[in-house]
Amino acid sequence: MTMNIRSFAATSATSPVALHAIIRRDPREDDVVIKILYCGVCHSDIHQARNEWHNTIYPVVPGHEIIGQVTSVGKNVNHYKPGDWVGVGCMVDSCQHCASCQDGLEQFCENVATFTYNGKDRHDGTITYGGYSESIVVSEKFVLRLPEKLDPKSAAPLLCAGITTYSPLRYWKIGKGHKVAVVGLGGLGHMALKFAKALGADVTLFTRSMSKAPEATRLGADHVVLSTDADQMKAVSNHFDFILDTVPQQHDLNPYLATLKRDGTCVLVGLLEPVEPPMNSGLLVMGRKSLAGSLIGGIAETQEMLNFCAQHNITCDVEMINIQEINQAYTRMLKSDVKYRFVIDMKSIETESL
Amino acid sequence: MTMNIRSFAATSATSPVALHAIIRRDPREDDVVIKILYCGVCHSDIHQARNEWHNTIYPVVPGHEIIGQVTSVGKNVNHYKPGDWVGVGCMVDSCQHCASCQDGLEQFCENVATFTYNGKDRHDGTITYGGYSESIVVSEKFVLRLPEKLDPKSAAPLLCAGITTYSPLRYWKIGKGHKVAVVGLGGLGHMALKFAKALGADVTLFTRSMSKAPEATRLGADHVVLSTDADQMKAVSNHFDFILDTVPQQHDLNPYLATLKRDGTCVLVGLLEPVEPPMNSGLLVMGRKSLAGSLIGGIAETQEMLNFCAQHNITCDVEMINIQEINQAYTRMLKSDVKYRFVIDMKSIETESL
Repeated sequence: MTMNIRSFAATSATSPVALHAIIRRDPREDDVVIKILYCGVCHSDIHQARNEWHNTIYPVVPGHEIIGQVTSVGKNVNHYKPGDWVGVGCMVDSCQHCASCQDGLEQFCENVATFTYNGKDRHDGTITYGGYSESIVVSEKFVLRLPEKLDPKSAAPLLCAGITTYSPLRYWKIGKGHKVAVVGLGGLGHMALKFAKALGADVTLFTRSMSKAPEATRLGADHVVLSTDADQMKAVSNHFDFILDTVPQQHDLNPYLATLKRDGTCVLVGLLEPVEPPMNSGLLVMGRKSLAGSLIGGIAETQEMLNFCAQHNITCDVEMINIQEINQAYTRMLKSDVKYRFVIDMKSIETESL
Repeated sequence: MTMNIRSFAATSATSPVALHAIIRRDPREDDVVIKILYCGVCHSDIHQARNEWHNTIYPVVPGHEIIGQVTSVGKNVNHYKPGDWVGVGCMVDSCQHCASCQDGLEQFCENVATFTYNGKDRHDGTITYGGYSESIVVSEKFVLRLPEKLDPKSAAPLLCAGITTYSPLRYWKIGKGHKVAVVGLGGLGHMALKFAKALGADVTLFTRSMSKAPEATRLGADHVVLSTDADQMKAVSNHFDFILDTVPQQHDLNPYLATLKRDGTCVLVGLLEPVEPPMNSGLLVMGRKSLAGSLIGGIAETQEMLNFCAQHNITCDVEMINIQEINQAYTRMLKSDVKYRFVIDMKSIETESL
């Protein structure tokens, strides 16, 4: 049966997020139907709701940091049963046969992964709808198991903010003996501090305001460097093995690249824009340094990250809201006024009439 | 004794390279005195002669692709004796105790390597003078042994153009099964084709003119791609494991980054300028790609490269000139009118009176 369910959707670039009846597809044989209980609010949600990436198909139901419970499963589903606590992240499908999919890196699917919202279903061509909704239907291959030990509310943002920062730290093999710096202390940055610390690195936060120092320390930073202070920056020149730059707006990379050690790597996880002001290539050449990028993580690695979080008692620092407060939340996020991720209590959607 | 020797030096930014009497330092106990027989002409020579990097100390004697024979050695020199064929590259000294020096990466000496010309001697503070000269005095630690099998004339540019392209191919472990592209077919680019081929890679040249295709094939390219042809570029999107970009002027990196496979790396060895037009960071993020830089190579690796060349019958393609033709050579180099490196027959300097 086709389900007409409660969802919050943006219906145009200028409108706020509004109530909208959305049709979920009929569950297929490999599908898991999930009642959504919590959904994190990611910066991408704002970009997509407002069509800032010029690819939004309206109505769009944002949300890709989803935690919920299984309500039913298709007959070919083996790993989940009703009642299980599960998560869904940024992807709900991929081609499964290209080199990237075979390598467990579905986010780089050469035939383009199907994203959780504003994507196109590979089988029936319908548009995918995200987590600002009472339920979602997802192939079991893209469902994550929530470890029992993790609080479901504060685990929600792990599905995007968590894996986005965990994956590059793992790919570049960060651990004991490494000096790691994090740029930006938002949803991604605060997770980067926690993960880098848990992996055994010596962790520094770059900040533009020393008022963030106590928070940074609480979150795992061993050091805080004021990036606007020339002396402090000079003191860490050629210092870091690895920099995780989580800033989603254009900013000058050169002062950070200068703090990388020879053979060090700076990884961008927030920036998708042209690099301006221009990067000074001499900074790369003179120390065999690298500037790289990283995008979320594969499904197996996302599960590994959730298990790592359970093992190390790591979750996001969240502020709970009701779905009716989503527009205020967007406004506050744009002012960086959130510590560190809004999570929607999706129970609040039940008060809306279809 | 202090030696007053024949050299060609630029005496001001506007002048051409002119004859100038230069004082060589007294040989120290660890020094090797070398009669210079051949000296390659590197693009850096032009930059420095014309003070384009704003750090030239006049008079400057360019030249850091030096081949010659030992004429005398200090009493603590163990590895060289008069008559030996030797080479000197871009560096003549480094601190020897920092982490980079300890790792055999003197080019990244944290206390700054002493460059072969326009550098400052670490012991007596005198300015270093390069290879456009009848002799040079160098600590044996920075002297390379020329394998017998290599032709001295065409080996000279290996000391800069050779090691600059060999080192990144080795550091990024290029070999069989890798798809490698080279950008630019000059002194560096033609060596990159030879090395990448000898290492077993499948090699492509990116060019802006298909007239270079036969030459590229002769030098080792398996494929030639016209970088101005949108269809050809599209056909190699997400294709290469590794790109070696040898172009020394600002150019658009984005079309090349688009041809890197997931996890691929593009290494700059020619560019020291700000990256303009701006690099699109999305190209890095969407495929976990890296943009990196590399600078010449360490002394041990330079010796390894010379030995590799002897083993694989690799030298540079050179055009011999007399020192008196250096200005015409510079003019032609700026028009890319050389295949692929000028080498000065330094015997020609003997006709000049001191």
